[in-house]
Amino acid sequence: MTDPVLPTFEDIVAAADRLDGVARETPVLTHAALDEMSGGTLFVKAECLQVTGSFKIRGAMNRLAQLPDAQRAAGVVAFSSGNHAQGVARAARLLDMPALIVMPSDAPAIKVAGVEADGAEIVFYDRETESREEIAETIARERGAIVVPSFDDPHIVAGQGTAGLEFARQMAVQGAPLDHLICCAGGGGLITGIALAMNRLSPDTHIWAAEPEQHDDWARSLASGEIRTNAPGTRSFCDAILTPAPGEITFALGRRLLSGGLLASDKEVATAMRAAFRYLKIVAEPGGAAALAVALKGLPGALRGKRVGVIVTGGNVDAGLFADVLNGT
Amino acid sequence: MTDPVLPTFEDIVAAADRLDGVARETPVLTHAALDEMSGGTLFVKAECLQVTGSFKIRGAMNRLAQLPDAQRAAGVVAFSSGNHAQGVARAARLLDMPALIVMPSDAPAIKVAGVEADGAEIVFYDRETESREEIAETIARERGAIVVPSFDDPHIVAGQGTAGLEFARQMAVQGAPLDHLICCAGGGGLITGIALAMNRLSPDTHIWAAEPEQHDDWARSLASGEIRTNAPGTRSFCDAILTPAPGEITFALGRRLLSGGLLASDKEVATAMRAAFRYLKIVAEPGGAAALAVALKGLPGALRGKRVGVIVTGGNVDAGLFADVLNGT
Repeated sequence: MTDPVLPTFEDIVAAADRLDGVARETPVLTHAALDEMSGGTLFVKAECLQVTGSFKIRGAMNRLAQLPDAQRAAGVVAFSSGNHAQGVARAARLLDMPALIVMPSDAPAIKVAGVEADGAEIVFYDRETESREEIAETIARERGAIVVPSFDDPHIVAGQGTAGLEFARQMAVQGAPLDHLICCAGGGGLITGIALAMNRLSPDTHIWAAEPEQHDDWARSLASGEIRTNAPGTRSFCDAILTPAPGEITFALGRRLLSGGLLASDKEVATAMRAAFRYLKIVAEPGGAAALAVALKGLPGALRGKRVGVIVTGGNVDAGLFADVLNGT
Repeated sequence: MTDPVLPTFEDIVAAADRLDGVARETPVLTHAALDEMSGGTLFVKAECLQVTGSFKIRGAMNRLAQLPDAQRAAGVVAFSSGNHAQGVARAARLLDMPALIVMPSDAPAIKVAGVEADGAEIVFYDRETESREEIAETIARERGAIVVPSFDDPHIVAGQGTAGLEFARQMAVQGAPLDHLICCAGGGGLITGIALAMNRLSPDTHIWAAEPEQHDDWARSLASGEIRTNAPGTRSFCDAILTPAPGEITFALGRRLLSGGLLASDKEVATAMRAAFRYLKIVAEPGGAAALAVALKGLPGALRGKRVGVIVTGGNVDAGLFADVLNGT
């Protein structure tokens, strides 16, 4: 296999221009109670407040905005449990392109509704018996449309990296850089994009991948230096980040730029969702709260007492599930 | 009675300097679903994301920072159902002053905990049988402390007005001013401070007071041109804004600067809380969602199709109540 084309810092800067007026600059929030729980000083970047309720618009818009005009009429196809789906649907609508999304039949209703609201077509598939990749490829071939991958694409990674560009600049205004930054990793598009931005703007910041326990493909891949997949059938309610393995592009970046993986149980993720509700007044979905969970369970030794950035990546969670989490059930 | 001393626009500018590094610039959020529900284009300023979970730190810090050194050792006393309490407790801690807060025994637990976390002393009273004003005055006299009013004070109003300063500037960056702005009114410190700022920076913006149905003291006061009180015993779950009547200072400003009052039922407020959760990913407490409720029930004729600012003023709501609201119970 040839080496994949990797995005550069300059690609992230160019992506930020494409996102001007499309994505929001999301705020960085702090609270003494979170510092006490974690044992460090936390700076929480609330990407749940991003347009479409997650960071995914950043990568999707950067990818779609670079399609040649001739390609736009045929539109795009994507497969996603929901957040990438909403990012692609929104970007396609803004660019006046048709979009079709292949979503699992058990996707959270709020994510399905978000995709529908942006006018995209939806095809559902069964997670257990069908391949979303095959369904998407077949439809794309029939239509002459392109498939927009959810993470393993240099333009997607560069787009997500704009969150890191923002975060580094926001911390510079606050007067001191981050010592560490924790970000959840599913496919790794966001964390590696952020790492690429930080590597230039805040080179002493260590970047850590947060994952659900038993869904620790990034932690094991980083430890071994080779891509490792999760065992089939591992479960977590962090639906947004249950990707089978790091991608070729994201792992090529991650191996070089990430310090390691940190894990949290679903119960610890629920605690983090409650803390985000209570102290920050933001809605975090399970996958979106994984990095906060890793911090609030008590930072590991090397991070204690340090300035630690945390990304809350999304807030697309059904009301009933969120109520259950608040009630501790 | 002599005319009260009213704050000026310049007082708000000076307050913004005192709040630099203390209060956050809160984001302005938008969502197409909210525009559809309201019939206008909504710009939601999320003061629930403010330090202490509500805008109240703005006024409290502006008031306490101007106390002479000789007064600081004796500290301050305040009475409040919770948000002003937290603002005063935080400002006092930052200025290294003792603070005592008189709170109703049925105040939301999250608000009591917030006050305790900032190290303030709390005295509880019974809403039905005791006078919080008398309790506060007695304690303040014994200690030589001053009572910090929650709204009817020119420095408090000027501090709250910094939210309007920010909002006007944020809209200028977005390229067009607001046609209308809706803000909840309890005592009226926030809405009149905002109105004072807008009157200078965005003079064509009409400002409307939002209140719970049957707790329409501002609507009736504005309509009659004289301060009207609520009937005793009126109930609403909007605990933060159940003030008996407009203040002398706030009504003197409001009579001149506000366009009128708009009402929402508790049920409509709950709908707004769910919409803020779902579409904006923010936590709004009942009183904090009153202005959004007024918009989402369907804007009145004069505001339809217009650019309408909405302040979500706070997010200090107990998890159990929020879960009930999400579940529609």
